[in-house]
Amino acid sequence: MSIEKDLFKLKPIAYTTMADQVENHLREYIIKRSIKPGDPIPKETEIAQALGVSRNVVREALSRLRMLGMIESRKKRGMILTQPDVMKGLELIIHPTILDEHVRKQLFELRLVLEVGLGDLLFRRKSEEHLKKLDAIVEREHKATTQIERIRCEVDFHSTLYEMAGNETLKRFQDILMPVFEYVVEYESKLDHTSVGSVTHADLVKILYSNNAEAYPNAMRKHLMPHLDHL
Amino acid sequence: MSIEKDLFKLKPIAYTTMADQVENHLREYIIKRSIKPGDPIPKETEIAQALGVSRNVVREALSRLRMLGMIESRKKRGMILTQPDVMKGLELIIHPTILDEHVRKQLFELRLVLEVGLGDLLFRRKSEEHLKKLDAIVEREHKATTQIERIRCEVDFHSTLYEMAGNETLKRFQDILMPVFEYVVEYESKLDHTSVGSVTHADLVKILYSNNAEAYPNAMRKHLMPHLDHL
Repeated sequence: MSIEKDLFKLKPIAYTTMADQVENHLREYIIKRSIKPGDPIPKETEIAQALGVSRNVVREALSRLRMLGMIESRKKRGMILTQPDVMKGLELIIHPTILDEHVRKQLFELRLVLEVGLGDLLFRRKSEEHLKKLDAIVEREHKATTQIERIRCEVDFHSTLYEMAGNETLKRFQDILMPVFEYVVEYESKLDHTSVGSVTHADLVKILYSNNAEAYPNAMRKHLMPHLDHL
Repeated sequence: MSIEKDLFKLKPIAYTTMADQVENHLREYIIKRSIKPGDPIPKETEIAQALGVSRNVVREALSRLRMLGMIESRKKRGMILTQPDVMKGLELIIHPTILDEHVRKQLFELRLVLEVGLGDLLFRRKSEEHLKKLDAIVEREHKATTQIERIRCEVDFHSTLYEMAGNETLKRFQDILMPVFEYVVEYESKLDHTSVGSVTHADLVKILYSNNAEAYPNAMRKHLMPHLDHL
């Protein structure tokens, strides 16, 4: 094969700025040195000197890590690695209006998957308080007269389930995805057929009061079937 | 109540840099103006002038959005909003060694929830090719003689399920969480009891060959039970 043809096989070089490179260096440094949350990281001037770049470039890279919640400045201690909020990066990106239809649909599917699978956490961590909260939502839903009130109850019911699951990371994931869900629920409510699953919120609460964890996944599937049928 | 006491109730002011503020302004601007992926965003100099800040500060804020994959520079077109990779921010943060035990556990739970709930996507999108791939992994697992080979098969089997689910966002989520799972699987494999669920990979494949979507969630629960029992 001629050199010319070989050349065409090369992939274009990814456009990386100096800040990108410094950022990657810092990530590698943190991982290779096994720096733990709470441990100090080198000073801006030290990094600049070690990598042979300007302080401005280092500042830009550190600024990114700070935005992600990975590092923090502490008085007298300089910068330290923090225990990052793993969902922070997701939160910074997800906003329903800047997501296209395709991605919104995928996130909605993700929600359906989560809710069907949630049972084991719910049965292990349910409390009287949570169950009563669900009861109250079901009652409020029965009395609802407008579509908006019904959507509110729908959202409250499912949010309470995530609360009940006792997993902060999962709850936070759900909170971030919430605007996307509301977007889809509103969209679906505008469709002519107001399809409701054969298992109601009240039925789900009854199962949660019981200790029948095996009944949960298929009950939730039936509850969500109108959405699942949209897939 | 005296003013002094009232003062103590005030929350400390969050430390925000100029770049934080410009970044927030840009986010609001994008959302309020309903800027869509592909649309241009104002130039660095325009932003600096409009907000009355230095170009350096604007550059720092734009650098963050670029890192998250929210904006891109295009030749002759200046900067445009991109369709962001929603999982990019997650990828930038998650690395098992910088997560504490507690967060790792929560992410592992999240995985268990996802796999139990995955059935409906699998049954809607399974292909002959995927099923054969699972068959091959099961066969490879039967022949495995070392713990490392078995862990490799375990990881391959579950990754293939995510592939089969036909949801790129979910697959990407799984890929990012993978190092965390491997970490837990390795940890568990070091425990004395090598606990195996009552439903094997071969049993799961048999269900996937059938059209019995209802059997899936509880079969997967039984398969994962040793992990679920750890909760």
